[in-house]
Amino acid sequence: MTKHSAGDLALFGGAPLFSRPRPIGQLHTPSFDRFRDKLRAVYSARWLSNGGPMVRQLEQALARRHGVAHCIALTNAGLGLMMLMRLLAEGRHGEVVMPAFTFRGLPHFAVWAEQIPVFCDVDPHTHTLDPHDLDARITPATTCILAVANPYAIGDREGLCAVARRHNVPIVFDSVYGFGATCGGHELGSWGAAEVFSLHATKALNGFEGGYVTTSDDHVARLLRMQRNFALDEDPDLARGHPHVLGLNAKLNELHAAMALVCLEDLPQLFAENRTRYEHYRRAFADVPGVSILRYPSDSVERQNHQMVIAELSAEWPLSREDSLRLFRAEGMAITAHFAPALHQSRHSPPGARGGSLPVAEALARRFLQLPAGDLVDKRDIDAIAALCTFIRNHAGEIRSRLSDMPAAAPALG
Amino acid sequence: MTKHSAGDLALFGGAPLFSRPRPIGQLHTPSFDRFRDKLRAVYSARWLSNGGPMVRQLEQALARRHGVAHCIALTNAGLGLMMLMRLLAEGRHGEVVMPAFTFRGLPHFAVWAEQIPVFCDVDPHTHTLDPHDLDARITPATTCILAVANPYAIGDREGLCAVARRHNVPIVFDSVYGFGATCGGHELGSWGAAEVFSLHATKALNGFEGGYVTTSDDHVARLLRMQRNFALDEDPDLARGHPHVLGLNAKLNELHAAMALVCLEDLPQLFAENRTRYEHYRRAFADVPGVSILRYPSDSVERQNHQMVIAELSAEWPLSREDSLRLFRAEGMAITAHFAPALHQSRHSPPGARGGSLPVAEALARRFLQLPAGDLVDKRDIDAIAALCTFIRNHAGEIRSRLSDMPAAAPALG
Repeated sequence: MTKHSAGDLALFGGAPLFSRPRPIGQLHTPSFDRFRDKLRAVYSARWLSNGGPMVRQLEQALARRHGVAHCIALTNAGLGLMMLMRLLAEGRHGEVVMPAFTFRGLPHFAVWAEQIPVFCDVDPHTHTLDPHDLDARITPATTCILAVANPYAIGDREGLCAVARRHNVPIVFDSVYGFGATCGGHELGSWGAAEVFSLHATKALNGFEGGYVTTSDDHVARLLRMQRNFALDEDPDLARGHPHVLGLNAKLNELHAAMALVCLEDLPQLFAENRTRYEHYRRAFADVPGVSILRYPSDSVERQNHQMVIAELSAEWPLSREDSLRLFRAEGMAITAHFAPALHQSRHSPPGARGGSLPVAEALARRFLQLPAGDLVDKRDIDAIAALCTFIRNHAGEIRSRLSDMPAAAPALG
Repeated sequence: MTKHSAGDLALFGGAPLFSRPRPIGQLHTPSFDRFRDKLRAVYSARWLSNGGPMVRQLEQALARRHGVAHCIALTNAGLGLMMLMRLLAEGRHGEVVMPAFTFRGLPHFAVWAEQIPVFCDVDPHTHTLDPHDLDARITPATTCILAVANPYAIGDREGLCAVARRHNVPIVFDSVYGFGATCGGHELGSWGAAEVFSLHATKALNGFEGGYVTTSDDHVARLLRMQRNFALDEDPDLARGHPHVLGLNAKLNELHAAMALVCLEDLPQLFAENRTRYEHYRRAFADVPGVSILRYPSDSVERQNHQMVIAELSAEWPLSREDSLRLFRAEGMAITAHFAPALHQSRHSPPGARGGSLPVAEALARRFLQLPAGDLVDKRDIDAIAALCTFIRNHAGEIRSRLSDMPAAAPALG
């Protein structure tokens, strides 16, 4: 839909740019026939759940890929984090240090594990946990460090692990956004006590839903396997010896494993397509003042998944981020602010969580938007989004005037 | 495999009765084509997860079936119980009273919700929570009563609800084993603050995996929907107003909803087949001394699912339950003791859980076995199992002698 005047914007009554919303997740879907054939195998084996052949095959393939001794497939990544934080606390009610600039579900997982979330500032370049600030926030009550990979930067893993070692505190890596990335040429997955990945449909490796933990620590792996299955184990003394390992149902189903196995085959092509999309975004936005596309580091040495496309709004951009979100969403872009607000300033963070002043996270949380990306977005869409931004900039005065006549936008969930 | 002497028993080196293990779960599998067609719809909608059309359709169908205002579909029943116990505690660290004779995962779920499990004795006839003992175990610290339906008896719901009302304590019903049963001619689902059901493949309604909560309490339903989705809600003040509602990822995926929708259509036939199987068991074991099949109540008034078949060993039976389990398992029966040991005597129960002396639960926990049942068991199998039991009884002396030469059987997980 070509826009000629501000009144053509969907927020003001015009036809939306996209009749079907363009999502921000990967949403990779292999041909139905490929999935159907794997499913038929599940079906004819009549092993529908609970540690069947597909789950075991997936666990082996992922352990190999990540270069670790164990992959523990789970219902989802969040339960993996809850389980790990509880397990590593060894029965203590302590604190988990985590970045203030990340997914807002994480502090809730810590409280499920009976740990207080303590927010830490992030590095201004990688936007991941800052080793210096981390060092200052560790206390005798710290039971675990939760470091989180960003889509476009995995952060200073060596530095974080050095801090963890110095304080003798376990460190866990949430690598959901880092799946497919390498560090020193090696696939992530073998850092710290364990790493956690997702199989959600919006992530690079699609199992419809699901997650997994990678570790080379035999003991952690054994306890996780026990924990995911109601804390039952063939050795009845294992649960008794580890009373802090609470059981729950966190097993991955054969259906999800079947889908993930199919999608594993597609990863090289998927990463290439993501990169093409990202590079097209970079070119399309090169001449749009006020909006820039966050750079992934050069991939001459390290691989990235190029899955998410993050836009930064600068002072040249004429609208607030909240008004921009409203305008974009009305046009059929199912987009969101990127990690906003900072967790220590979020009304969504559970009571008792601690932060203080975390200036880098606070500033970052005001700057970014996640743009449409993944398999359902093509080059024409990207060109249209860039043209829309140029249009908004060229009609900023009238748009601002119309916006001021409307009820105020709800702020991002504080 | 006809057995002629004790040496023909698989435990002593003979060929097993069943080359492919006979399970105890329902494991109902509709034709692959029916599931495939539903899946294709999920696939072509490209709505792979998170509140898609299949989940909404399933929630509506189940709310109608159970006669409630709300069905909240979840990843599994256990997470539903964790969420409900936390939600109803309203931030207090208290106690949840639950039966001592039930599934051993339940006390772990209470501790995840930061509640201390307090075990209560059960009624000698229904084997469900005894209202009189319950009344004595409620204290000012009680945040919730967790009542559990047994496969063959839903218990005295009126009596339990009266106790809950008198103490002004919420009561939740775990109706996983009671799915399909009626009470006063009405499908379960509308009792207490909420009821919890399972969609696991071993249960009557197969979604491969999954669970759901039924309630007519708008507030509980709204908070559960928020909680299952990381405690995010369109109204940013809802989370703030309910800081005790911790978020997690407990959403049901479209795949599971699609399977459950297919299986919903099959329930009348499935219940009829279960009943036929159960009645065949009753007839086949009528003349086997020492083993009786636990009776479901007459279904002239109330419907039951007849899903599980429970055997009771009496004093006439020549072997201990543990030795019997060993013998049966070696023959290819994937069976288990029924709710053993009692939870207050179980090493698997988390530390801090309280019980005392609970004589009915203790006695019941020594008596029962779950026999092979569900779609993968036919009349010939049942006849063969009955014949095996007769054989064991007729060769009891030699079997006992051979057993005494073997290392002791591991006790059921204490």
